[in-house]
Amino acid sequence: MLYSKSYIFTLKETPRDAEIVSHQLMLRAGLIRKSAAGLYTWMPLGKRVLDKVIAITKQEMDKAGALEVLLPFVTQGELWQESGRWDTMGKELLRFTDRHNHDFVLGPTHEEAFSQIIRETAQSYQDLPVNIYQINTKFRDEIRPRYGMIRCREFIMKDAYSFDLDEAGLDKSYQAMRKAYLSIFHRAGLTVDPVLADSGNIGGSGSEEFMVPSAVGDDSIVKCTCGYVANAEKAESIIPKREIKSEQKIEKTHTPGVKTIQDLAQFFNCEAKDLVKAFIVEADGKLVMACIRGDLQINERKLQNLLNATEMTIAEADVIYAQTKAPIGFLGAKDWPTDVILDESVLDMHDTVIGANEKDMHWKGVSVLRDCKKTLSGSFHLAEDGHLCVSCQKPLQTYKGIEVGHIFKLGTKYTEAMKVTVLDKNNKEIFPVCGCYGIGMGRVVAAIVEQGADANGIVFPMSVAPYHVIITPTLAEGELFEQASELYNLLQDNNIEVLLDDRNERPGSKFKDADLLGIPLRITVGRSWQEKQEFEVKVRRTGELLSIAKANLLPTIQDLMAKEYEVLNK
Amino acid sequence: MLYSKSYIFTLKETPRDAEIVSHQLMLRAGLIRKSAAGLYTWMPLGKRVLDKVIAITKQEMDKAGALEVLLPFVTQGELWQESGRWDTMGKELLRFTDRHNHDFVLGPTHEEAFSQIIRETAQSYQDLPVNIYQINTKFRDEIRPRYGMIRCREFIMKDAYSFDLDEAGLDKSYQAMRKAYLSIFHRAGLTVDPVLADSGNIGGSGSEEFMVPSAVGDDSIVKCTCGYVANAEKAESIIPKREIKSEQKIEKTHTPGVKTIQDLAQFFNCEAKDLVKAFIVEADGKLVMACIRGDLQINERKLQNLLNATEMTIAEADVIYAQTKAPIGFLGAKDWPTDVILDESVLDMHDTVIGANEKDMHWKGVSVLRDCKKTLSGSFHLAEDGHLCVSCQKPLQTYKGIEVGHIFKLGTKYTEAMKVTVLDKNNKEIFPVCGCYGIGMGRVVAAIVEQGADANGIVFPMSVAPYHVIITPTLAEGELFEQASELYNLLQDNNIEVLLDDRNERPGSKFKDADLLGIPLRITVGRSWQEKQEFEVKVRRTGELLSIAKANLLPTIQDLMAKEYEVLNK
Repeated sequence: MLYSKSYIFTLKETPRDAEIVSHQLMLRAGLIRKSAAGLYTWMPLGKRVLDKVIAITKQEMDKAGALEVLLPFVTQGELWQESGRWDTMGKELLRFTDRHNHDFVLGPTHEEAFSQIIRETAQSYQDLPVNIYQINTKFRDEIRPRYGMIRCREFIMKDAYSFDLDEAGLDKSYQAMRKAYLSIFHRAGLTVDPVLADSGNIGGSGSEEFMVPSAVGDDSIVKCTCGYVANAEKAESIIPKREIKSEQKIEKTHTPGVKTIQDLAQFFNCEAKDLVKAFIVEADGKLVMACIRGDLQINERKLQNLLNATEMTIAEADVIYAQTKAPIGFLGAKDWPTDVILDESVLDMHDTVIGANEKDMHWKGVSVLRDCKKTLSGSFHLAEDGHLCVSCQKPLQTYKGIEVGHIFKLGTKYTEAMKVTVLDKNNKEIFPVCGCYGIGMGRVVAAIVEQGADANGIVFPMSVAPYHVIITPTLAEGELFEQASELYNLLQDNNIEVLLDDRNERPGSKFKDADLLGIPLRITVGRSWQEKQEFEVKVRRTGELLSIAKANLLPTIQDLMAKEYEVLNK
Repeated sequence: MLYSKSYIFTLKETPRDAEIVSHQLMLRAGLIRKSAAGLYTWMPLGKRVLDKVIAITKQEMDKAGALEVLLPFVTQGELWQESGRWDTMGKELLRFTDRHNHDFVLGPTHEEAFSQIIRETAQSYQDLPVNIYQINTKFRDEIRPRYGMIRCREFIMKDAYSFDLDEAGLDKSYQAMRKAYLSIFHRAGLTVDPVLADSGNIGGSGSEEFMVPSAVGDDSIVKCTCGYVANAEKAESIIPKREIKSEQKIEKTHTPGVKTIQDLAQFFNCEAKDLVKAFIVEADGKLVMACIRGDLQINERKLQNLLNATEMTIAEADVIYAQTKAPIGFLGAKDWPTDVILDESVLDMHDTVIGANEKDMHWKGVSVLRDCKKTLSGSFHLAEDGHLCVSCQKPLQTYKGIEVGHIFKLGTKYTEAMKVTVLDKNNKEIFPVCGCYGIGMGRVVAAIVEQGADANGIVFPMSVAPYHVIITPTLAEGELFEQASELYNLLQDNNIEVLLDDRNERPGSKFKDADLLGIPLRITVGRSWQEKQEFEVKVRRTGELLSIAKANLLPTIQDLMAKEYEVLNK
């Protein structure tokens, strides 16, 4: 392909609203363009990368025995009502009515629709197991889309759904998908960690996420040397020990302007872990106080799961005050007017301090179970650096990651809700046991860019690069350009994807663009040719420069490509 | 692929709501399943066919120099407001708001969104021409979806948009697309006619549709031996001559129960062509009377274009009566209370008959221009069999067709409305001149099925068949099955796509399914093998049966395939 015919528009400046490297570089290299908030267009170069990720995904899915189908993106609301998710999904589920006033949603995931297919086709154990998948558009009406393709609203997802006769079958299907996923990411040049994950609103008994370690990742991951790895949302940990104090008399104390845990620790001359923090959340519209030990953070996902809430947000001060007359900074669970949930970390505390629900006042000498209201208790602390591993008691470490895939053991949640049955060998109706498996195609591209970027731009792995080779003649005419054109034809004839930079631009500007675009190999036709009839080959990833005679060029390129593929296909 | 692992569910019965052959066979062969009104799932076998049509389309588009991109399906309402189509599109345009209450549409076509891209990227004449396309989901909220993939609501479309500097450039881009389209259809095994078409609500100066002749086609096509071919919506014709009568005195006549043109012709002893028919339409909510010669039909599209109406329907009798007190069967343009549009065919009529807008009464001796109200006149008769060609005056013929593609010269309609400009060589801002080009991928599959079907099922061309070969052992075990498996491996190793029918079913039932699925070549491993160590090869299209020795089987299959491809790629 000629550069001049490729409709590539690179940007020198970093677009203002792009916060992370992959978003910046994908915009700067012209792979994508923003159409509206959370809505992006894949431009010609980006579409080539996306297609390669899709092709790898399809190959590995097919190899694993999954069958590709294509469902309507527009999905009947009725199915969502059957499964119950019509009520449990929040505003991320975009709903609308058609001209006949029937309810529809823009599918954010397709458990219901796939279950409908199985319900209408599979009759008996002979029709199962089956694993069917699609690569199709999804929509999630994110309240704050950001990070480009990482958290956008419309995106291309590969979603697969397996239907088995029993748990053992599900295990097999799940493991086959886990293996396929690892192959997909490896072939796409991504380093991923499979981590234990929370199942969120999709439900089910167990799940793993595939995480690309990245400083800008939205997710926190907790890891132990023993092999335990989990999303912090899901992770368990043993919290640092605390001395058990003896019971004291409760006493109201004047604490003027003493609001934070730090303030309190100083005022009462104790440590944060001797205190109780209170948070107020709005869970499905109801205020709930959550209490946790002063040195711990709340795991919002766990808290939401414990409260069984569809939507949960931190409550605003004015909302709290309007309902309780209690001022922020002085909240406490004694005589609190709404529900109170206590983290396990506070249950055995004595002689601690809590807010008195009036300005500048706290209770001291508090024994939690004696003095505080308790509607519910459970474990909802966030696992953090320095906590201990629940498996081996060694200290945990945390890091950030980008989720690129998620696999779930759903069990019979959807098949039961939607009355999907097949006859088993004894002619008895059973509910198929399901798994579901998703990979965000665009997010994979973004993660590849994020993981591989250097100061000069993108570094694409060979397998997903928009082109394998870019040829850069330093002049757009004459002898150098003729040599470049000859090479271009030679490589193309050998099934190598080549971009010929035929623009009439300064060499420096062409080199900058080549680096920015991340094409793995660059061939410069310039001074080396003039001086010694050689071409300069630059390996984008390593910066390595080779000077190659014309006769050796094709084998050199083929060799460099083969080496990259060897690693990717291992 | 093993049949038992392919999740193919064929139906013996024809589904009740499937009216046409392609819809019936696509459901019966399990290529598609209905999810909701006008919404279909492509099942594994159908997805393979769809993918092949998509792949051929992509290859020919790329060959023609077009660049593939992918736009969001969910499109901002704002863009549609800019182009003006927010107001001119009817209810087929599905609109909704997101959680932040912004307007969006499910794109039924993407002129606006593509124009936005060009507006934000192309700066000067150096950036054009460009032809960009996508293969993506579309949605049209059809009031009455029908015929399966022919008129559904959500569908996959290849839509391309060219942007040129001038009309000459557009002509070139348009012709390149026309050529690419003919190649696409030919390679997919479809016989199509390019016909002159109306541009509908997309607008522009000229367009052609690619029609697959079919008795069940939604479109009427008018054809002349001189080469003139046009959609009846667009076609012009010379209507049969009529004697010009002399002017008479107008006179009200009692015509008890005389309502139809046939009744009137009998009552007044004249021919239909001596009379005037009156229709009432509701154009954007306003009643309009349309008058046309008694022997002609109204071309609704032309009438709607003349009235410049966004939505137009035939008015209901009670609506007409409520507004005018005039009874159906006795309507006429003399003293009519709403707008009247006259077809050119009635302008010179004298001594004709029209309704008197009261029960059982007509006017006779009417001279149209003397006696009738006229708000507007124009040509809106439908071209019919027997009318004469406007080019060569020979009689026209009509036939039915299914539209599978449509190419438009849009001109500057959208670039002007959306202020898309580039600088020309003289540094002057100009509006790029556009074309747009669409092919319905699913409709192509349906048309292939419709065109190729016989009494036993589908007959797929080799290029789009879900598998090239089906192997049918008459037993699912033992020597015959082993032979079949050996063949299966042999053919697969030679890149032939094979379905091995490993089901434990009666041979007759397997043969029926093989025919229904339309796989081009069937190899039977059965009695011939037992008796003379040969395999039976059946060519689905011709029914030809060959008995082939094992050693010759692969070359025979390769030869049969090559012959089919030779025709398709010619």
